[in-house]
Amino acid sequence: MTIRSCGARRAGGLGLAMFLVSLCGFGSSSLLSDGDNKIFELGDVLFESGVTLPDARLSYVTQGTLNSSKTNAVLLPSWYSGNHHGYEFLIGPEKALDPAEYFIVSTDMFANGLSSSPSNAPPPFAGPDFPEIAIRDNVRATHRLLTEEFGIERLKAVIGFSMGAQQALQWAVSYPEMVEAAVAICGNAKEYPFGIVRLEGAKSALMADAAWNGGRYDEPPEVGLKAIARHWASWGVSQEWWRRETYRDLGYESIEKRLLAAESGWLTRDANNLLWQAKMWQRHNVGDTPGFDGDFEKALRSIKAKALLMPSETDLYFPVADAEYESRIIPDAKLLPIPSIWGHGAGAGRGPGDAEFLNQAITEFLEGQGSQ
Amino acid sequence: MTIRSCGARRAGGLGLAMFLVSLCGFGSSSLLSDGDNKIFELGDVLFESGVTLPDARLSYVTQGTLNSSKTNAVLLPSWYSGNHHGYEFLIGPEKALDPAEYFIVSTDMFANGLSSSPSNAPPPFAGPDFPEIAIRDNVRATHRLLTEEFGIERLKAVIGFSMGAQQALQWAVSYPEMVEAAVAICGNAKEYPFGIVRLEGAKSALMADAAWNGGRYDEPPEVGLKAIARHWASWGVSQEWWRRETYRDLGYESIEKRLLAAESGWLTRDANNLLWQAKMWQRHNVGDTPGFDGDFEKALRSIKAKALLMPSETDLYFPVADAEYESRIIPDAKLLPIPSIWGHGAGAGRGPGDAEFLNQAITEFLEGQGSQ
Repeated sequence: MTIRSCGARRAGGLGLAMFLVSLCGFGSSSLLSDGDNKIFELGDVLFESGVTLPDARLSYVTQGTLNSSKTNAVLLPSWYSGNHHGYEFLIGPEKALDPAEYFIVSTDMFANGLSSSPSNAPPPFAGPDFPEIAIRDNVRATHRLLTEEFGIERLKAVIGFSMGAQQALQWAVSYPEMVEAAVAICGNAKEYPFGIVRLEGAKSALMADAAWNGGRYDEPPEVGLKAIARHWASWGVSQEWWRRETYRDLGYESIEKRLLAAESGWLTRDANNLLWQAKMWQRHNVGDTPGFDGDFEKALRSIKAKALLMPSETDLYFPVADAEYESRIIPDAKLLPIPSIWGHGAGAGRGPGDAEFLNQAITEFLEGQGSQ
Repeated sequence: MTIRSCGARRAGGLGLAMFLVSLCGFGSSSLLSDGDNKIFELGDVLFESGVTLPDARLSYVTQGTLNSSKTNAVLLPSWYSGNHHGYEFLIGPEKALDPAEYFIVSTDMFANGLSSSPSNAPPPFAGPDFPEIAIRDNVRATHRLLTEEFGIERLKAVIGFSMGAQQALQWAVSYPEMVEAAVAICGNAKEYPFGIVRLEGAKSALMADAAWNGGRYDEPPEVGLKAIARHWASWGVSQEWWRRETYRDLGYESIEKRLLAAESGWLTRDANNLLWQAKMWQRHNVGDTPGFDGDFEKALRSIKAKALLMPSETDLYFPVADAEYESRIIPDAKLLPIPSIWGHGAGAGRGPGDAEFLNQAITEFLEGQGSQ
């Protein structure tokens, strides 16, 4: 396996980061600049779908230094339409994850445009011919990165938001001896029926554009990308967020201007990448991990990591009830909802106080003060 | 003005009723059969948009008998993509509205396919050339029906669900001396920003289909209609409804089968009708009533009717907070949330116990026991 530098090859990289910064208001000061991500060459990877992708690659960055006993690693897996920049609000000297203390590995999910994706795979796996992927495919690939490249046998923590939370809890099920702590922020161990249906709305809006053409497009399906932007606008934050016209705090003088900015952001995404990630999101269930025969609760009971589940009190697609349910089954779990009107976005530290709340909670949890 | 019988001219009539019955599980026994709706010929109508629609028509049905003092009339205005059948769960001998006691007028909103609509207006106002319409346009037209046709000067109550609730509260603002009681079920006196954005998602999904073609289609834009069906599937009921797999109680063995049934229902709708109704929904604000200069709270304070506001505890697009806010401003208002996991659908009596709860609450309210 070799590691090589890899520039952000697609507009999605910098464009997406800029979009998140501009639209969501969290800190723009970055320890990581685009183009410094590394690529772990996976070679041929057999996905859960049964398809083998040749020359698969996993994009990631690291911060801090792995200590000699290799016991200070923390993994941060990326979320839907995000990348390895997503967790910067948790990283820094005064934050939950100080690079002076931890060796921090931030990975890019398959299909996000930096790791192997519909947008960057060569034929015969390009675009809509890309294999269907699973959360577990990411977890297995990252396990190889950590063990083969760094010799890490134990993770201090896996911390994830949204689809990153899906990965964090999957890590705790797949490698119970390896994960000391799992933090699932605004995300669950499986996708519940509501979430599946909600994502059908998103996918349908995008695919309604004939220019999507079954995924075989030369130009981006802009009408569909704008439609998915408007889909997400009402889901991403809470009713109360809109009621208070919080978009004005972000510099938008009208609802429509906020929506147009959202459209600009989504136009930087690749349609197939979005769809492949959404399908991965919909299908996820830790109960499908080999050895559990689809028994979701059995899989949760097998978790040995201490777990911190942090739904947002106003998240419209990962309601508190689902995390509450999981917290009753995972043997050592603490439930700590984020008090915020920022809905799902609270888990990305977007609202005033959200980042502080998350940093404090995770700091205490990792220090052991927060476990039950 | 003349009254003439009018059969259901479009598939939307019976098809929609069948869809509601089959999908939503409320009673299929009907006091009204399709095709018995009447048409009130409005002649030329100047809409708020400034456009005059010639030969405008208002579809409605009545039940019961207007008493000699004309004091027993109750108005039931239709909701989004609904028709005059929508309130049958409230009508009957053992229900809130007994035709032996009340003269019940159920109206069809403009753009629902029975009253003047994009789908039935002749050129030059057909399809996308239909004027933009406002909730107040419906209220004014219905006022003419009630006063000119029936000589009604006083309404015992206006009861409305969703866009029907928008109409009910607009009635109380527009004709404060005429409305004794207003019941707003899962709907508000204005559309709040969240609702506007949420409807952008719905509209964008439908219009993303190139077959919509700016509203100039010969064949229905089926891809877009299916996309809006999937949009609505996650909004219409609550997260908890899906979490409990309530669709199984309705006879659907999988999420996908439920979604396919929803698509079949939405394919009976006319795309332009749906869009024109959605735009009317988005724009509504009782503060825009002439005389209030956009002052929403002033308009609410002018209401003389006693009001009953019944949001659903789990409604995703008309959250309780909005009705609670309005209940603090309307002089004589009672707030009574519907305890249900059926989300918005609770207000249409769809969940077990929802119809009973509404019938009892409205019965008590109309008897004066329920007012504050």
